[in-house]
Amino acid sequence: MPDPIENTIVALSTVPGVSAIAVIRLSGPDTFPIMDRVFKGKKLGTVPSHTLHFGTIINAEGAVIDEVVVGVFRSPQSYTREDMAEISCHGSPFIIKEIIKLLLNQGAHLARPGEFTQRAFMNGRFDLAQAEAVADLIHSENETAHKTALDQMRGGFSSEIAKLRESLIHFASMIELELDFGEEDVEFASRDDLRALIDKILLVVNRLLESFDLGNAIKNGISTVIAGKPNAGKSTLMNALVQEEKAIVSEIPGTTRDFIEDEVTLGGLTFRFVDTAGLRESTDIIETMGVSRTREKMKTAAVIIYLFDLSQDTREDIEQESAKLQDLSIPVIKVGNKVDIAKPDLLEWAGQQPDYLLIAAGKNENLDQLKEELLRTVSAEKFKTGNTIVTNMRHYEGLSNTRTALLNVIKGLDETITNDFLAMEIRQALHHLGTLTGQITTDDLLQNIFSKFCIGK
Amino acid sequence: MPDPIENTIVALSTVPGVSAIAVIRLSGPDTFPIMDRVFKGKKLGTVPSHTLHFGTIINAEGAVIDEVVVGVFRSPQSYTREDMAEISCHGSPFIIKEIIKLLLNQGAHLARPGEFTQRAFMNGRFDLAQAEAVADLIHSENETAHKTALDQMRGGFSSEIAKLRESLIHFASMIELELDFGEEDVEFASRDDLRALIDKILLVVNRLLESFDLGNAIKNGISTVIAGKPNAGKSTLMNALVQEEKAIVSEIPGTTRDFIEDEVTLGGLTFRFVDTAGLRESTDIIETMGVSRTREKMKTAAVIIYLFDLSQDTREDIEQESAKLQDLSIPVIKVGNKVDIAKPDLLEWAGQQPDYLLIAAGKNENLDQLKEELLRTVSAEKFKTGNTIVTNMRHYEGLSNTRTALLNVIKGLDETITNDFLAMEIRQALHHLGTLTGQITTDDLLQNIFSKFCIGK
Repeated sequence: MPDPIENTIVALSTVPGVSAIAVIRLSGPDTFPIMDRVFKGKKLGTVPSHTLHFGTIINAEGAVIDEVVVGVFRSPQSYTREDMAEISCHGSPFIIKEIIKLLLNQGAHLARPGEFTQRAFMNGRFDLAQAEAVADLIHSENETAHKTALDQMRGGFSSEIAKLRESLIHFASMIELELDFGEEDVEFASRDDLRALIDKILLVVNRLLESFDLGNAIKNGISTVIAGKPNAGKSTLMNALVQEEKAIVSEIPGTTRDFIEDEVTLGGLTFRFVDTAGLRESTDIIETMGVSRTREKMKTAAVIIYLFDLSQDTREDIEQESAKLQDLSIPVIKVGNKVDIAKPDLLEWAGQQPDYLLIAAGKNENLDQLKEELLRTVSAEKFKTGNTIVTNMRHYEGLSNTRTALLNVIKGLDETITNDFLAMEIRQALHHLGTLTGQITTDDLLQNIFSKFCIGK
Repeated sequence: MPDPIENTIVALSTVPGVSAIAVIRLSGPDTFPIMDRVFKGKKLGTVPSHTLHFGTIINAEGAVIDEVVVGVFRSPQSYTREDMAEISCHGSPFIIKEIIKLLLNQGAHLARPGEFTQRAFMNGRFDLAQAEAVADLIHSENETAHKTALDQMRGGFSSEIAKLRESLIHFASMIELELDFGEEDVEFASRDDLRALIDKILLVVNRLLESFDLGNAIKNGISTVIAGKPNAGKSTLMNALVQEEKAIVSEIPGTTRDFIEDEVTLGGLTFRFVDTAGLRESTDIIETMGVSRTREKMKTAAVIIYLFDLSQDTREDIEQESAKLQDLSIPVIKVGNKVDIAKPDLLEWAGQQPDYLLIAAGKNENLDQLKEELLRTVSAEKFKTGNTIVTNMRHYEGLSNTRTALLNVIKGLDETITNDFLAMEIRQALHHLGTLTGQITTDDLLQNIFSKFCIGK
């Protein structure tokens, strides 16, 4: 791989297609020499940073390809910290293709996915965890995921981790210095201070590790099982929840995203409904779930909405099934459905029970109450504490590895192992902390991370 | 309808979806007051035009929605000639929705399709025919359509028409002045000069009207019928032409447009293949087309590629069918297909005939020669004379109406009709010329034109 910083890269940074405008980005040392060969207007090599210039893009034969506005960003005041130009052209696939072809012919290289952000990282604009958050930000689909990604992009755990790592490096150096003195009994690094620092780091690491369950729910949706006997109204309820959301989403034209049928965003959180029709029916599910609540299962159901059919069920049915639900360690919202056609005595009885929510899914009755209950059940507040939340599996693994290494250091201190082993364990912890923020990287790691980005970012 | 210039409008100007960046546009008198309420960074109300500013978009609760770069354009140095801001945000549907919602809450209005360009027209940035060319430019799919639209957007026939209309207005005024003198025999306007001017205008109008067939072919593709007996290799040839084109189109990732199976761009022109399988087969088509070459038919076939099967046909078949093809007034390219498995004597004979092109569609043999012949047959040069070409049906109608009115003026002059009738006919011509460039418009006309634009343009 050639040193990427030597190249000037180009890519379409907006969604391809027909639109009012499209933006083509250039970054690298030859940005302005290349632009000055294709842009008729002011010489961009001489204008100040952060200025906009109207002109035309001219091909090799001197024919006008488009009237454009070019934004000029001079190193280091740009996204990549390199010289950058952003060409706003008409949003025509033909024009976009012609301009990119022209820039390639003039010596620019087609950017790999995420290459702009990778350069921003390599030029020190932000660390690796922040760079990764850029992709999360773009893909965030609800308020909480968006906030979490934005927080991480703007700093998040990065500075805290970096500071703790600095302190740890200090200890590692001291201990390695002790090694130089060989047999002599010197102690540059107070073992008590080291122990205190490691406890402090472990506190942070453990907090971040614990946030991952939240983070996963935020990023991928809170899995919500709608269960109940056949015909209890499960699909009707799901459609009622989804339909309403659809209407809200499509209010602003042009921004409607591809809609995933069984996701609903409530209170800034995405609830991902699990189709129980695909699983075994009704009470079997309760049993299945009750038997062993493994971590895997936990992932597939964070909360259950259990529907009773007030027009068909008997009081005995309801009491019997409810008893079984008690045994689950997953929170359950018990819902009496079809109040509009309920058996009067059953409705009266259900109304007297404190823990049944009564709705008519087909008539959109009391759905707001159900939503509130859903948010209360998953303790929506805990997602909004303002604490940094880990959402990235790579970070989770890095933190896990850090914890293991730190626990080894503690064990080593307790067992008073030799200094060289101690230094090695500390170096191990430093390594894992460093991979989080990108002080330690490999080409493979970087490629793996940035290849998941959009083109042009 | 409120005066649109009073409002400040907002829209997403890039294609909706997940991408590196998206651009949201604001235009109108409240652009900077609104921006200053949601943008944390420099006060945009005070910065110079054509500058770029990094900062954050903050919602009503003070939470950061995104880190953005805002481009500032001050009236009249902008696309609409109004104050404008272009917000480059992360290309996340969630962020786009949140920012637009915020701007709407701050008093902006959602722009109608084409409303930015409509304002540019109403503020005199360009005339109506130029504004219409903006939409054509965005939708142009080949080099020639692109060039034609760009020429029109950058002036095209607009200034010429406007100048001729000015001269005609002068005559109309003079003749109307004569009317004021009633019975007196005064002649302010020389009838010879008027006649000369009308001839000059007719010359331009006729040239533009004649260019419409070209214009239509450029915009909608040159309809090309691949004909021949069943099994002559029609589909194979079409696929061979289309496949190769596909490979070229997808060279630059991210710019591949939806591919229409039966269109091929050669030498900057789009050839639209007409499926003969849907029509009656082989010789019947020749007859159908030969009978009456109406204008309508002309639209559905500008050129025919007629395939003979050198592995199956007899010399007599070929000579007989070729004779029929002679009678067509549509250009025909006669092609001997399947040279790879041809009957040796037939191949030898065909090779000696000057007007048969020999190919093997299945082996991609000699397709380049066929393409060259296709371009030669439709006289590709005539599309590139640099003359203004009319591509828009509305312009065609306006020009037709102008011609009718001008011919009436000439008739009036020849028959020495009274001045008031003459003035009326001239006014009629002025009206139609005025609709072309938009000096004369109605709300309905404008709405009809701009509603076909993209949102955000």
